[in-house]
Amino acid sequence: MKRVLRLTLAYEGTAYVGWQRQASGTSIQGLLEEALERLTGAPVAVHGAGRTDAGVHAFGQVASARVDTGLEAAVIRRALNAVLPPDVRVLAIDDAGLEFHARYSASGKAYEYRIWEGTVQPPFARAWSWHHPRPLDVAAMDAGARLLEGRHDFTAFQSAGSRVRSAVRTIVCARVGVDDPGPAVLGRAAARGGLAEAGRLLVLSVEADGFLRHMVRAIAGTLVEVGEGRRDPGSVGALLQSRDRSAAGATAPPHGLVLVRVLYPA
Amino acid sequence: MKRVLRLTLAYEGTAYVGWQRQASGTSIQGLLEEALERLTGAPVAVHGAGRTDAGVHAFGQVASARVDTGLEAAVIRRALNAVLPPDVRVLAIDDAGLEFHARYSASGKAYEYRIWEGTVQPPFARAWSWHHPRPLDVAAMDAGARLLEGRHDFTAFQSAGSRVRSAVRTIVCARVGVDDPGPAVLGRAAARGGLAEAGRLLVLSVEADGFLRHMVRAIAGTLVEVGEGRRDPGSVGALLQSRDRSAAGATAPPHGLVLVRVLYPA
Repeated sequence: MKRVLRLTLAYEGTAYVGWQRQASGTSIQGLLEEALERLTGAPVAVHGAGRTDAGVHAFGQVASARVDTGLEAAVIRRALNAVLPPDVRVLAIDDAGLEFHARYSASGKAYEYRIWEGTVQPPFARAWSWHHPRPLDVAAMDAGARLLEGRHDFTAFQSAGSRVRSAVRTIVCARVGVDDPGPAVLGRAAARGGLAEAGRLLVLSVEADGFLRHMVRAIAGTLVEVGEGRRDPGSVGALLQSRDRSAAGATAPPHGLVLVRVLYPA
Repeated sequence: MKRVLRLTLAYEGTAYVGWQRQASGTSIQGLLEEALERLTGAPVAVHGAGRTDAGVHAFGQVASARVDTGLEAAVIRRALNAVLPPDVRVLAIDDAGLEFHARYSASGKAYEYRIWEGTVQPPFARAWSWHHPRPLDVAAMDAGARLLEGRHDFTAFQSAGSRVRSAVRTIVCARVGVDDPGPAVLGRAAARGGLAEAGRLLVLSVEADGFLRHMVRAIAGTLVEVGEGRRDPGSVGALLQSRDRSAAGATAPPHGLVLVRVLYPA
């Protein structure tokens, strides 16, 4: 039975060369293709909605796979999770229409970039947050982020040397806020006991109809400079106008970035 | 200058043989003693409030160290964090009185045991939660936990072959509840998008004046059997009475356990 499966995936990117197959190293795409080939007995091409770079994580990556099998979706999910390493998990599998393609059918994506602001980065935050030891002005960062909302040419925020037809994208929402890191980082009792003085979790959330290469990391690096007081929040608008990558901030490291969700038309 | 330092520590226990120095393998105690010796130029003995086992984590372990140095506490903290691996962090250092001993001065401790209930364990929860794929009755587990509160002989919940003078301890509070795993596990946007269907986080919190070896893990293993419906919540009282380790449940694995806080008299 020829079908197109829609897989929803979560992974910790630390150990991988990224989503996409590379000449060497282990990729998420490669792991999935091998697991599906083992299960169905035929080569399978898996397409991801976002080609996350080495070290970038995902909570809600979506992939499509054209397979020929009569197995139930839930059985396929269990079988894949049984052979995949524990840092790559299939959260859900649904049957999609034959025309579904995870990347071309997507209408948007949401990323989060996490920054641990404080003198000490808690052990359980180190895999998924960028450590920034000095205080950041969150209100200024949020003001800068909001100036990115709307339809703009994001050339200033894409990695130099990229070749895409157009750098025009629409950011639906870009915000910076302080989030409760939850019991996974310091524990409720530890937080109540004042150990939260170790720092706080800042989250940059960006939702757009599409992203350029390294776009969220370039935005994060630029907004951190705003938070440090080295850039005026209002200067972000002029940066967009400049279309000059060297005018924006450094590219923030990959391990703070998470592909949170992929959006499809209803 | 002879002083006693009080160190507040967080660590991920995954890579270690536990708090205490062992014949082989790396211990947290050993790492700290070596780092302090390097800093002060003399051997230093470090005492921890809780001797966490291999694989057990800490958010608020407290240790005492008798040192001879004029360095400021904040300088010592920075120096230690610069040489310790990133999965072991010194959150705070204070000067304590010369009579302070992390273990003997403590009046109590708080532990959390985390269970990920759901078909799929998210990658970022795997290091610090025990995966339980089938549904658990949280209300029954909580009812069972509350029967442990008070002053009791906890022989039924200590590892067989332990030799302590008395197994009588006072549990101030024992509760089981569902906690928000926070953005570190699935992300706010992913949770809003319904990906939280992957499961939920159950937390057993226990605060007591002292703990026996493997006590929280034996309690967690027993309460999971209550949650599965294999034991009546009310049977926990009879278990205490039995003083029979083999009557209680299996010892839950170490990686779900966290020493959250150590309590000292005001």
